[in-house]
Amino acid sequence: MEEFVYPLKIEIEDTDYTGTVFHSNYLKFMERARSEWLDVMNLGANWRDSEKIHFLVHSLSINYLKPAKLHERVEVVSSVKSLRSASFLLDQYLRSAVAPDKILCRAEIKLVCVDHDLKPCAIPQNPVFKRFGAN
Amino acid sequence: MEEFVYPLKIEIEDTDYTGTVFHSNYLKFMERARSEWLDVMNLGANWRDSEKIHFLVHSLSINYLKPAKLHERVEVVSSVKSLRSASFLLDQYLRSAVAPDKILCRAEIKLVCVDHDLKPCAIPQNPVFKRFGAN
Amino acid sequence: MEEFVYPLKIEIEDTDYTGTVFHSNYLKFMERARSEWLDVMNLGANWRDSEKIHFLVHSLSINYLKPAKLHERVEVVSSVKSLRSASFLLDQYLRSAVAPDKILCRAEIKLVCVDHDLKPCAIPQNPVFKRFGAN
Amino acid sequence: MEEFVYPLKIEIEDTDYTGTVFHSNYLKFMERARSEWLDVMNLGANWRDSEKIHFLVHSLSINYLKPAKLHERVEVVSSVKSLRSASFLLDQYLRSAVAPDKILCRAEIKLVCVDHDLKPCAIPQNPVFKRFGAN
Repeated sequence: MEEFVYPLKIEIEDTDYTGTVFHSNYLKFMERARSEWLDVMNLGANWRDSEKIHFLVHSLSINYLKPAKLHERVEVVSSVKSLRSASFLLDQYLRSAVAPDKILCRAEIKLVCVDHDLKPCAIPQNPVFKRFGAN
Repeated sequence: MEEFVYPLKIEIEDTDYTGTVFHSNYLKFMERARSEWLDVMNLGANWRDSEKIHFLVHSLSINYLKPAKLHERVEVVSSVKSLRSASFLLDQYLRSAVAPDKILCRAEIKLVCVDHDLKPCAIPQNPVFKRFGAN
Repeated sequence: MEEFVYPLKIEIEDTDYTGTVFHSNYLKFMERARSEWLDVMNLGANWRDSEKIHFLVHSLSINYLKPAKLHERVEVVSSVKSLRSASFLLDQYLRSAVAPDKILCRAEIKLVCVDHDLKPCAIPQNPVFKRFGAN
Repeated sequence: MEEFVYPLKIEIEDTDYTGTVFHSNYLKFMERARSEWLDVMNLGANWRDSEKIHFLVHSLSINYLKPAKLHERVEVVSSVKSLRSASFLLDQYLRSAVAPDKILCRAEIKLVCVDHDLKPCAIPQNPVFKRFGAN
């Protein structure tokens, strides 16, 4: 299964009074990784604008396993779990960059394709989706 | 079932380029509501410090139903779904303050009780928990 | 001199690893206070939309005097230092809600009036500006 | 004069309803750049911990010149304006990565050295400070 690895460092702005990452900020890291992955696959803002669509977060679940600490170097690992006509499901987890077996949190995120009126619509055809099992 | 209602207004800082709330920021609103509710029930920072515990977010799931817009007045409605010896499960949703039937997003959030070494531990006894079905 | 007092409580999301407010977050508090004050003076989003203008932050300076702590109750105190045809200068400071002599930080913020193409333009006439010395 | 260049991309989380970066978020970018620069100069968290000091933002001023847009690639350029026994003054500006003459905002930031009780103290000696004119 294809995976996309996005590295980052925990900054002061990401932490809270516990010295570890505030729980909602992990979702920012996952968003950054998705954005970069879409760019790398030529599904970035230019393509989405030309197709007059957005991808929106429809729902998600996340498990917090170990806290990420200030200055820690981590990686977001993303993969497609399933691809449907108007949505897709991603698996995204955060791991230590120096100890890749150490998983810090793991999320399942459902994205839907919407038009510029925010109405759900079919994901436009693009050769890259074949890599994820689409016809 | 007891509910706690926490009002707030959507600020510029909460929005992203879509003019609506950035998806991870809804979790900040829910955190603010939990914090205030714990205070109101005398389970605030003073009590938790005296008992040498923290409540941490263990896991959560959230459904985004309708976007909250800049300057919109909304309410976080919180209730306890279940209370166990070392954790509890909350239902928290965001609704329009002027149209209470309009639910914007809804989350289920599991909190665990940990000691100051972040080890899971039993929730200390407190009369207030009787309201949620504890012995 | 007219002052506007905006109360708030320091939330977990506002803190960083030091247990006090992350330095850029004080500017969010000041923005919230400005937004509320403009609303109270009927210079809110509806008026600005009808006049086809925005108020943008042009420049600011801020002095950090004492850190605001998690769960501390504070107030943003705002006043107009000067009002010109296309801009105004605000004094905004944060103080403890329980010890009003304790100033936590103080900023001078210059806002400019721009049209919907983000070009500077004259602030539209409005009776409320008489309170700040405008003709 | 020595400069440190820190690249980054504007993410959705950085924007507000205008589609450009929320004004306080530029300060986060500057903090990230400072943190990386200190690391590169071996003045990172390990050194500061061993010397029992922190560097805190004492005061700053910032001019917003042009807005940074979603997905724009930018660079924070940092340099030391002056170095004193217990503080230093930085010049930090944000420029377009593709059009380096396009300055987006510029700040002057004063950092002070404090001990673990947050009391001001002398910056510990370190050979690297010679590059900035210290004896």
